[in-house]
Amino acid sequence: MPAVKLDFGPHDIGCAGIAMNKEALKEEADMKKSLGAKIIVGATPVWIVGTYDTAGKPNLMAAAWAGVCCSDPPCVAVSLRKATYSYGNIVRHGAFTVNIPSADYVKEADYVGIASGRDVDKFAKMKFTPIKSDLVYAPYIQEFPLVLECKLLHTIEIGLHTQFIGEILDVKAEEAILGEKQIPQLEKINQFLFSPGARTYYKIGDYIGKAFSLGKEFEK
Amino acid sequence: MPAVKLDFGPHDIGCAGIAMNKEALKEEADMKKSLGAKIIVGATPVWIVGTYDTAGKPNLMAAAWAGVCCSDPPCVAVSLRKATYSYGNIVRHGAFTVNIPSADYVKEADYVGIASGRDVDKFAKMKFTPIKSDLVYAPYIQEFPLVLECKLLHTIEIGLHTQFIGEILDVKAEEAILGEKQIPQLEKINQFLFSPGARTYYKIGDYIGKAFSLGKEFEK
Repeated sequence: MPAVKLDFGPHDIGCAGIAMNKEALKEEADMKKSLGAKIIVGATPVWIVGTYDTAGKPNLMAAAWAGVCCSDPPCVAVSLRKATYSYGNIVRHGAFTVNIPSADYVKEADYVGIASGRDVDKFAKMKFTPIKSDLVYAPYIQEFPLVLECKLLHTIEIGLHTQFIGEILDVKAEEAILGEKQIPQLEKINQFLFSPGARTYYKIGDYIGKAFSLGKEFEK
Repeated sequence: MPAVKLDFGPHDIGCAGIAMNKEALKEEADMKKSLGAKIIVGATPVWIVGTYDTAGKPNLMAAAWAGVCCSDPPCVAVSLRKATYSYGNIVRHGAFTVNIPSADYVKEADYVGIASGRDVDKFAKMKFTPIKSDLVYAPYIQEFPLVLECKLLHTIEIGLHTQFIGEILDVKAEEAILGEKQIPQLEKINQFLFSPGARTYYKIGDYIGKAFSLGKEFEK
């Protein structure tokens, strides 16, 4: 019987490793499962994007491919397919609003993501009140707790989606969601989240703690 | 006494509106409070970005200015300040990983957002195991439930932040977070969220329901 050749490379496995081989170590290193090139990222926001069409009719669409992308100037990015009615509206007017729904409006927000503004007046159908921004040519939803008024800064063609980067000219919030120092509190916004892959919605959960603070114990 | 001239524009206020005037209606329309041009958007993700430096040392940074930006090719965007150590690493190697922490690692993730890779080996300090991606030149965190391996596609200079758009070449997940059809479940990822403005962290909350489904009741 030949002697077993152990080749652990740079790993130091100690005495317990005598029965292990390189393959076993490799498995430990690669124990995650490959799911392929997919959009699986945990939670994304659900933002409702407000625009005007050529006739000045307010329209809405739901964007989950979205997020913050710069602090100064303060900017958000929303990605849309060219096929959407909102795409042309943003290109034409260089403006959009981001409307953040509370979980009370999850059904309405979901409908906004199903229907097209070509076929239906989503504001009227959802009984939303369109408020014309006085900063950009775009409408926002009176009934939602938090809205951003955005001027288009950059348009990035990526593939199926085009990313629109908008500078936030103002944030408008319902008084009821404001906490200390007039800062909106996540519990009060009562926003909900989207889970790609599973295609499901979730609420915001419990408060954990302060950022740029919890980790300080490791500085010692 | 002159007759009161009622001018409600397109609004139909009915009989109860007889005592209202235009100013009152305007107030109703503008009852949101202006907070200024700030990053206040509800929740953002907390993604830990993995890179190698010139010496091949793995580094990490925390990104909350981040999100999905395209379905095909599947892409994510992360925004970094030029001053970060990771910025040069991504520019140099054209690759990064996105590591999604469970709430068990909120302190470690917070520390990653406080310290700089110029001063400290964050992998070693956090006792994270760096795994070299076999798809891109970037390391991922073995201890985290969900990781994306990304090839840099676009670099967009916005202002204080530069946005890096990366194509997801693979998603790797711990078996334990997989649900039906091998799709990760948000409850099991146990991710946490960041609230800009308040600068606080929150857990993911309760399941609400299925997307592209809840809104169908309005199609009737």
